[in-house]
Amino acid sequence: MTSNNVKAVDDLVKIISKLPGLGPKSAKRIVLKLINNREELLKNLTNTLAEVYKNVVRCKNCGNLKSTNSNCICASKKYEQICVVENIADMWVIESSGVYKGHYHILGGTLPALESKKNDGLLLSSLINRVKKNSVKEVILATSATIEGQTTAHYIQDSLKDSKVKISKLAQGLPVGGEIEFLDDGTLFSAFKNRGPVSTD
Amino acid sequence: MTSNNVKAVDDLVKIISKLPGLGPKSAKRIVLKLINNREELLKNLTNTLAEVYKNVVRCKNCGNLKSTNSNCICASKKYEQICVVENIADMWVIESSGVYKGHYHILGGTLPALESKKNDGLLLSSLINRVKKNSVKEVILATSATIEGQTTAHYIQDSLKDSKVKISKLAQGLPVGGEIEFLDDGTLFSAFKNRGPVSTD
Repeated sequence: MTSNNVKAVDDLVKIISKLPGLGPKSAKRIVLKLINNREELLKNLTNTLAEVYKNVVRCKNCGNLKSTNSNCICASKKYEQICVVENIADMWVIESSGVYKGHYHILGGTLPALESKKNDGLLLSSLINRVKKNSVKEVILATSATIEGQTTAHYIQDSLKDSKVKISKLAQGLPVGGEIEFLDDGTLFSAFKNRGPVSTD
Repeated sequence: MTSNNVKAVDDLVKIISKLPGLGPKSAKRIVLKLINNREELLKNLTNTLAEVYKNVVRCKNCGNLKSTNSNCICASKKYEQICVVENIADMWVIESSGVYKGHYHILGGTLPALESKKNDGLLLSSLINRVKKNSVKEVILATSATIEGQTTAHYIQDSLKDSKVKISKLAQGLPVGGEIEFLDDGTLFSAFKNRGPVSTD
């Protein structure tokens, strides 16, 4: 090799190409951009990553990200609704849609559909505690419409049946813009089962 | 906002979404991947970026990347060929193709086609020095086939005309897989002008 092949640069390309959606080519492009913008990008990115590594953790109570040196939002206020999601990405999507403005509970995954695997990292018991301790009036189950997501929703429903909290889950049916011709049987079944009266106004 | 919106995480998403090929959505996906792989990815990436920021600079002689605490490859050995490219990305492409294994000179851009702009960041005089000082026998001009790239190549050719070095430039013609029907006039003109005898073996 007659280009210098600085080891740190090679390492950087390797790490970046492991990130989702990126490969060796796009990683190289990113590394060049970083090197060509030392102060504005490379330095900023380095410092911000270090900051996140040092100071951002997941709250053990609600699963959300929090700063190590401040209390999580889940401890601070009274709230009436909790939206239960599988992971942070799901929360971000719901949040950026603006459809829901309440509090979240991030499970950190789903229960396995089969009993074989144990999933002790899930924040299930802390959800029950949050509901009991606070004046929560509604738990909205926003887990995915997969077998695992629905298994988890059922489990939560079951665990909360003794409390007086209202439990709801996201409606299933036709997605907006969905054509009947291309719908799968499961969605079609849900759409028929959950059909509602036509509003006449 | 009722998700915690940790500032460092928001900042990280913003910076990453500025990188080439990435937007807010892919940046969020990358940030989540990093947070979910603290030690393996987040820490490694942070340290490697810091290392690159601290220890990787561009050599002022040949334009290549080098480690601050070691000599650049351009100072160390005798070499007979120099391939002149516009930027590091071009060098990486040539290098990974395996077509050329010699030394490089990275200009850091091109001369402007019009005289109006000055481009004093270009490593042009150091190229002349390298050719004079070393026993270089061939300078391969591998600048782009754009107006600016060709202007730069002409300028270098002109600057080196007093030295005895052989100057060559990349062939122009049909790209491999190129269909005549879709070729532009310029490429077609080059392909005709540079036509060669058919080998009969």
